[in-house]
Amino acid sequence: MRAPRELPPASAPMSTEWFRRRFLHRVPSWGRGQSKARGWGAGLEDTVGNRGPQACGRTWPASPLPYRRPKFLHGVGLAPRPDPYQTRPRPVYCPAPDRYLPWNAGYAEVINAEKSEFNEDQAACGQLSIKHRELGDSEDQEWMILCPEESVTGCYWALFDGHGGPAAAVIASNILHRCLRVKLEDVVEGILAPQPPMHLSGCCICPSDPQFVEEKGIQAQDLVIGAIEKAFQECDTVIGQEMTATGQSGGCTALTILYLEGKLYVANAGDSRAILVQRESLRALSSEFTPESERQRIQHLAFIHPRLLANEFTRLEFPRRLKSEDVGQKVLFRDYNMNGWGYKQVEKSDLKYPLVHGQGKQARLLGTLAVSRGLGDHQLKVLDSDINIKPFLLSIPEVTVIDLEQQDIQEDDVIIMATDGLWDVLSNEQVAQLTRTFLQDNRHDPNRLSELAKLLIHRTQGKEDSIWEQSSPGNVLVSYDDISVFVIPLHHKKQRRRDS
Amino acid sequence: MRAPRELPPASAPMSTEWFRRRFLHRVPSWGRGQSKARGWGAGLEDTVGNRGPQACGRTWPASPLPYRRPKFLHGVGLAPRPDPYQTRPRPVYCPAPDRYLPWNAGYAEVINAEKSEFNEDQAACGQLSIKHRELGDSEDQEWMILCPEESVTGCYWALFDGHGGPAAAVIASNILHRCLRVKLEDVVEGILAPQPPMHLSGCCICPSDPQFVEEKGIQAQDLVIGAIEKAFQECDTVIGQEMTATGQSGGCTALTILYLEGKLYVANAGDSRAILVQRESLRALSSEFTPESERQRIQHLAFIHPRLLANEFTRLEFPRRLKSEDVGQKVLFRDYNMNGWGYKQVEKSDLKYPLVHGQGKQARLLGTLAVSRGLGDHQLKVLDSDINIKPFLLSIPEVTVIDLEQQDIQEDDVIIMATDGLWDVLSNEQVAQLTRTFLQDNRHDPNRLSELAKLLIHRTQGKEDSIWEQSSPGNVLVSYDDISVFVIPLHHKKQRRRDS
Repeated sequence: MRAPRELPPASAPMSTEWFRRRFLHRVPSWGRGQSKARGWGAGLEDTVGNRGPQACGRTWPASPLPYRRPKFLHGVGLAPRPDPYQTRPRPVYCPAPDRYLPWNAGYAEVINAEKSEFNEDQAACGQLSIKHRELGDSEDQEWMILCPEESVTGCYWALFDGHGGPAAAVIASNILHRCLRVKLEDVVEGILAPQPPMHLSGCCICPSDPQFVEEKGIQAQDLVIGAIEKAFQECDTVIGQEMTATGQSGGCTALTILYLEGKLYVANAGDSRAILVQRESLRALSSEFTPESERQRIQHLAFIHPRLLANEFTRLEFPRRLKSEDVGQKVLFRDYNMNGWGYKQVEKSDLKYPLVHGQGKQARLLGTLAVSRGLGDHQLKVLDSDINIKPFLLSIPEVTVIDLEQQDIQEDDVIIMATDGLWDVLSNEQVAQLTRTFLQDNRHDPNRLSELAKLLIHRTQGKEDSIWEQSSPGNVLVSYDDISVFVIPLHHKKQRRRDS
Repeated sequence: MRAPRELPPASAPMSTEWFRRRFLHRVPSWGRGQSKARGWGAGLEDTVGNRGPQACGRTWPASPLPYRRPKFLHGVGLAPRPDPYQTRPRPVYCPAPDRYLPWNAGYAEVINAEKSEFNEDQAACGQLSIKHRELGDSEDQEWMILCPEESVTGCYWALFDGHGGPAAAVIASNILHRCLRVKLEDVVEGILAPQPPMHLSGCCICPSDPQFVEEKGIQAQDLVIGAIEKAFQECDTVIGQEMTATGQSGGCTALTILYLEGKLYVANAGDSRAILVQRESLRALSSEFTPESERQRIQHLAFIHPRLLANEFTRLEFPRRLKSEDVGQKVLFRDYNMNGWGYKQVEKSDLKYPLVHGQGKQARLLGTLAVSRGLGDHQLKVLDSDINIKPFLLSIPEVTVIDLEQQDIQEDDVIIMATDGLWDVLSNEQVAQLTRTFLQDNRHDPNRLSELAKLLIHRTQGKEDSIWEQSSPGNVLVSYDDISVFVIPLHHKKQRRRDS
């Protein structure tokens, strides 16, 4: 995510000294130890080990997690310390060729160029084992002991794009899947029933209860969506507790994909993006949440609670920040209840800094933050003020569901999920075109999906070649941001549906 | 709109005595007088005559408007008093064959069956003349006197579906176009400029002002959308003032179409609907606003201001109203921040009546109202309580823009706009199929558009014939609601683009 345009962020990029103090009193976990027998699965289950958030029913000691790169990058010769200040080309890292990610997905990442000391992106993926009791009332403890536990297995991929430091993204990559597992376990009986029961216990108080549920159109996928929504909120709460307890700050976006019982759930809170690339079509699976896309929600909150602006900001949007010469003029503006634009006679109070200001990638919330949804940022304030950003942020994701059974999945159909650095430079169409061409030309390369992720990143670094020139004549954009990319093949899953 | 399912409406259907007292002390305007020279144009401009809302800069005497049918139905032998209690078939009324509606549009209406004493739908259409000053600063009075006034001409069609009495719909059909004209005149210089200027006066305080406007992507159509949004809100304010002053009650939905400078603006607040029917395609131009479709907004307001529920309702949604036997059980529920469903352990407070309850056409806001946007209802309260409905209602429409220049308009392409009674019984696809077949078979009938509107209404009255049987074998649904239908031809406009 980019730095603010006009006001600097409340949390300026961290100094090396700060990094040493916060993280280096513990040896970074990357570069140490070996992965466990389950390969990529260990990356998910073992990252947190016995550490777990209190809200997930476990203790959470008050010491900060060390900075690290994703566990599945072990053994690929990562530089012992990130160095964003090195001259280009910055190295693009992929998992080792023998490292198996879920569904044989591909991955690549690059650190930003001189924006912050560390790669603030984080990634996680793995298998989720959701335990459930075959029968019985969850309130009936005696019965539960007699009940065998079974597992439902899902898969999970996640990208977190941190800001104001790497801490929130590190924590989120360590615990969001745990929160998700707990929330799914809470409702798994409902998910596995032919129809979600009105009562989780399965008892039927009114004979027409199933009919009420059916009339509302409530399906198993609605319980999964509800669990994902709760998991994001719980993860946000845990990050807040952890950051407060350990004196850290910062936040992150979160984009996750969960595969469960034949369906993919794409959940997004922030400005990362996932697209589905098929031979003949392209579909956006997420939309970005920015101060611009959520302007009306943000302005409405300020309308309801004007004190949140502490008399320092104006709720209204104008094409530019107003000057004293504008006072008395009728100037273009928008309020919370307007999709269109109108003219308003400018008063002195309109000269305050706008709550949502700028456009496109430059849009900022309270002059500070470029996203309007995400995790963390509990301590974030407007520079030199006591104005909190958090009340305007939502941790709730938007969830898109894809029923793989209903899709005509072909061999090269993939999901590309990436942090905003990729999409700032490449359009959905350009990524789709590069994907189709690359996969067709490299059909027999067993690592072609990570190679594709690497290629996509290389295409953002200002390299030029004939393919690129063809697809984007003229200006070639360059990204200086952290970028992380997963390439998730769908045909693989279709072939091996019974495997997991 | 239907009556509530479980709680009766705050305003019960009016008695005949009430009708006489409220309306018949003045002779109804329909059935009297002649239309003026401009034909249908008079229907719009002259309905209000010198009466106008104060908020539109005119006086507004405190005497209720008489009940009436649309002026363009003059001379078609309307029954002197509506009689919803007559046996079927209820008469379907169309404008007289020599009555020209804008673009030669068709229209038909039918009163409900024994639901209320009057047809609570209202309709309006006509030409809108928007005056503008050719040049100059609107603040410069001296200059304005020297400035010639010119007119920009638009067209307007509107449907209003009243509830709790016909009064709000009658007022809205009389004044919404006036509010719209005033709001458009406020910004017409901006609409007609090559690009909306940052300052309405046209002066440029910063050299880069045009660039700021361009970067925000602000176009003339955004000013029109802003004007429509303001006009709906102003009309709502005026209705509230008028109803309070004259002791009337009730509300109405509003669906309007405005044609201006080559574009159609479809604005909807309520559950009426407009669709674009073309030979090969069908497109919904509006979406309905109901307690179900706006559940999260409504629940969120109750979350922010719990006192609005006066401890009598629960904010949470459940598949059915809970009973004391449900207490302690984990039951399916949704809160304002959930798109998915979860389970919650039921407490005693969850047994209250739900804020949003029921599904589909049965969904109700506070057990009372079936729509969540519209005009009026300022006095509406939950039966036997002091709980106001109005804070949960929005008068702001959603506006869809169609650029006719960008459309491939063929001869039989039409917009069908109708109140919910039609759409309760016929799907978009059924209406499109009936439309295509009828227009093809009746190419040379000069009144075929009103005949089509009439046919569509007949199809909701339980009549059966071979075409109908083919399109909907089995169950034939019947509507007992008021229904009003406009059929607006688009090809006519394309041929005569220079006319208006």
